[in-house]
Amino acid sequence: MSDVAVLGLGAMGSALAGALLDGGHAVTVWNRTVDRAAPLVARGASAVATAADALRAAPVAVVCLTNDAAVREILAGAPGTTLVNLTNSTPEQDRNLADWAAGQQMTYLGGGIMAVPPMIGTPAASVFYSGDADALERHRGLLERFGRVDYVGADPGRAAVLDLALLTAMYGMFGGFLHAAALIRAGGLPVVGVEPAITAWLTAMAGALPEMAAAIDSGDHSETTSAVRMQALAYPHLLEASRESGLRTALVEPMGDLLSRAVAAGHGDADLSVLADLLRDGRVPSMDSDGEETSDEQPT
Amino acid sequence: MSDVAVLGLGAMGSALAGALLDGGHAVTVWNRTVDRAAPLVARGASAVATAADALRAAPVAVVCLTNDAAVREILAGAPGTTLVNLTNSTPEQDRNLADWAAGQQMTYLGGGIMAVPPMIGTPAASVFYSGDADALERHRGLLERFGRVDYVGADPGRAAVLDLALLTAMYGMFGGFLHAAALIRAGGLPVVGVEPAITAWLTAMAGALPEMAAAIDSGDHSETTSAVRMQALAYPHLLEASRESGLRTALVEPMGDLLSRAVAAGHGDADLSVLADLLRDGRVPSMDSDGEETSDEQPT
Repeated sequence: MSDVAVLGLGAMGSALAGALLDGGHAVTVWNRTVDRAAPLVARGASAVATAADALRAAPVAVVCLTNDAAVREILAGAPGTTLVNLTNSTPEQDRNLADWAAGQQMTYLGGGIMAVPPMIGTPAASVFYSGDADALERHRGLLERFGRVDYVGADPGRAAVLDLALLTAMYGMFGGFLHAAALIRAGGLPVVGVEPAITAWLTAMAGALPEMAAAIDSGDHSETTSAVRMQALAYPHLLEASRESGLRTALVEPMGDLLSRAVAAGHGDADLSVLADLLRDGRVPSMDSDGEETSDEQPT
Repeated sequence: MSDVAVLGLGAMGSALAGALLDGGHAVTVWNRTVDRAAPLVARGASAVATAADALRAAPVAVVCLTNDAAVREILAGAPGTTLVNLTNSTPEQDRNLADWAAGQQMTYLGGGIMAVPPMIGTPAASVFYSGDADALERHRGLLERFGRVDYVGADPGRAAVLDLALLTAMYGMFGGFLHAAALIRAGGLPVVGVEPAITAWLTAMAGALPEMAAAIDSGDHSETTSAVRMQALAYPHLLEASRESGLRTALVEPMGDLLSRAVAAGHGDADLSVLADLLRDGRVPSMDSDGEETSDEQPT
């Protein structure tokens, strides 16, 4: 028996297996295309020919494949094994897989890696885990090889919720920065010169997130220093400036649309935080082509 | 003569006039609806009946209206006056207004306020200015009443470029956070509990912005720790999780679309920074309904 098996040796899986080898663990590896295993075997890993062999080679199997469909394709029952699924997944996919694992007398931990492969094994990496708490404690020493272990609850889908929420926030920030960079370039300025001002501004504006979070939790969006109505009036300037500069506006149009719809739905005096509610419960009215408000939902 | 005139007494214009009064300046104010002037008159301001009167009442006139059309409607020639336009504008609107001002023997400063009204007059506020450098130095003492004075160049549109770039970045971050918050709520968690992790993650990820800026300036997107191809594979999970949770995906779809298109255009091995180029120069191919790549632009 190895200490741990790693299934899936893409950039992330290879980094995970490497961190375990660096930690002195006996590691069994498997990958669909066997050549990906060679560098790890050279570092002391044992390669096996099938996923089923890997799942039975150790008390804990770390799976890191492209997606849930790829995991489903290779999984085999291995009673007693703890399955640590670090594959990008949705919460539902994790919950379904946990159910399947339970049926196979396996324990399940869903995970969400908050790192890129070069960060694995460094203090900069952290991983959300959810599912079987006993299994997490049993294998904590191994899992800490990857980075900080952040256990977030028994619901096996919870790690994916948090993983995807953080990624969503990150892609929002990156999307905003990328469009801003395109505006800056179109304005004839180097992005490098403006980036410090953007970063400082984002840091300052992130100071609003705790209050927005509290407003979203409470449903009370009445406290604001910048009402949705004013923001809906100002927002079109960035769309217009983008068009003046010949930029594609795909990344920035939806926020303008949402602001307008929030005003149309009667939320003009509310804080921007109200938009989270509108995303969630479908209360944002559609606009027909004449700008008339129409509802695509039954009123609640 | 007053020291300064303020035209437009919405929340922002009133805050600007108030900061000038607090600084001990003689202030003339004008607003289309006269009742907005009363609180400022009570604090010592002089109200005048027409915008033309206000423009001729002081050597410098600060204009803060809803948009460029509103500015155009009320402006009158006032030779010798410096026009400081803090109205939300596009770069082109500022440049056109500067041309008009020059024709009236007026000097022009475009401005972009990086603050909400309650921040005006505090160290947290800053304002970008561009245009006539001599006028800026002449009136610096007044302008410093609003917050930090950040002069960014002679092009009268440059302040708007920077203002809109920073706002674009901010709305990206807020949009990402709002959708993340909706995911978290749908997952049955309080947003307040997760917000610190989001803020810490955004702060860590903002560490990538300097390298992204350098890549965008140089056009060399080959250095990456997370290639577009991998991100395009992972991104659909957040869309799928959003749909599982019944969320509207309008805010998060365009980034997924852009990632897919970047891969289709041959940028799969590039860094995410490549997307800024694709926004800028129209090289992103459209996809037809069969997922076949089609170009909507002539190759360059």
